[in-house]
Amino acid sequence: MPPLEAYKRQLPYTYALGLYPAIQALELVPDQVSRVLVHHKLTGEGAQALYAACERLNIRTEQAERLLKRVSGKDNCYAAAVCRKEQHALDPSCNHLVLVNPMDAGNLGTILRSALGFSYLDIALITPCADSFEPSVIRASMGAVFSLRVKEFASFDAYEEQAGARAMHPFMLSDKALPLQEVVKQKQNPHSLIFGNEGSGLPASFIQVGQPVMIEQSRAVDSLNLAVSAALGMYSFLVR
Amino acid sequence: MPPLEAYKRQLPYTYALGLYPAIQALELVPDQVSRVLVHHKLTGEGAQALYAACERLNIRTEQAERLLKRVSGKDNCYAAAVCRKEQHALDPSCNHLVLVNPMDAGNLGTILRSALGFSYLDIALITPCADSFEPSVIRASMGAVFSLRVKEFASFDAYEEQAGARAMHPFMLSDKALPLQEVVKQKQNPHSLIFGNEGSGLPASFIQVGQPVMIEQSRAVDSLNLAVSAALGMYSFLVR
Repeated sequence: MPPLEAYKRQLPYTYALGLYPAIQALELVPDQVSRVLVHHKLTGEGAQALYAACERLNIRTEQAERLLKRVSGKDNCYAAAVCRKEQHALDPSCNHLVLVNPMDAGNLGTILRSALGFSYLDIALITPCADSFEPSVIRASMGAVFSLRVKEFASFDAYEEQAGARAMHPFMLSDKALPLQEVVKQKQNPHSLIFGNEGSGLPASFIQVGQPVMIEQSRAVDSLNLAVSAALGMYSFLVR
Repeated sequence: MPPLEAYKRQLPYTYALGLYPAIQALELVPDQVSRVLVHHKLTGEGAQALYAACERLNIRTEQAERLLKRVSGKDNCYAAAVCRKEQHALDPSCNHLVLVNPMDAGNLGTILRSALGFSYLDIALITPCADSFEPSVIRASMGAVFSLRVKEFASFDAYEEQAGARAMHPFMLSDKALPLQEVVKQKQNPHSLIFGNEGSGLPASFIQVGQPVMIEQSRAVDSLNLAVSAALGMYSFLVR
């Protein structure tokens, strides 16, 4: 086995950094965890839970202070699960969240956390985009990424080919856009909620993929934060 | 006048860093802008708009490369407006957003942007809390902070004394909490939506200040991001 490296996108594995994320990885995706790194300063109830889970699952723990420092960039990271990266096929019978070129890792993590909270378990990412396996995304998602089916597509067309028949809703400013509260009154399942890049939003061509939606807001702001917009969309479709 | 310093909380002034934030400060709070710092590399249409605004308002511009680098911590910050900090009394006849001990600057900026978007113009911050005048908050708010009445209070009691008669809604997990969509059906104006700290939420004692609210979500997540929760609350009260 080659030595572990600091995370980068082309590696076949990633790290759940920190005690809580490592325990979550062991609970949610035990088949993907190859080993767990620990620091000699790791103590307490959480540490016992981590060791117990590793023993039950027959996963090797390894004291590795320098490696933890190298992969986390921090002196106070006391545990990490080394996880094989796996993309999952989306379920064509479920509702999807589609993010076109999301570039901010923190935003992406927050969106994945909201998606799990609102039961959107299938996430399509259109590249180029932030890396959903990056340790900071895993952390910002509070481990939600381990409970979701996340898949990257090279284009929206490539996504559409695999998505199955469904209602599509691009969130965008347009003369043809209807207010979110109007659209949810006629919601159909399965559906896809589609959001563009943090800065530029969706290209105008997305008007053609389905009924465009706009979130009701004051003219005093140009737009809302992407993680906020995505949460408002998913929540409104869920509770209607 | 003493020399300008890198921003810290005890200073009586702050910086709107960058061309767009500086122009916003000139548009929205011209009375608070004492001077504008510019870099010799600042050119183009935006630069012309900035110079025109300063001339119209009779505000001094000053070429100050080293100062820009010192106050921004960056080499590529080409403009900054120096703004006097001002807290504004809240309007007791309006709806309020109350944040109890929000500690994350990025979250706070995002929340202020959403608040302006959903017409919650009065923001109470209960200390200790992130500093709404910090340049990174101003930036994350996309300048929204200049259009809001933001005031810090040493305690929730101190806020309540000045808030006027109103419905109060703490957002928290509790047996007594009702789902957000139920509560908004009986909404009263004016009201206050109250959110706790990112990690710990609101103390249990907040059950007594008014009808507690919970955001409908799957049990798969412990909680939502604070900026997401605050946006869902404000939006749901707005559109109902």
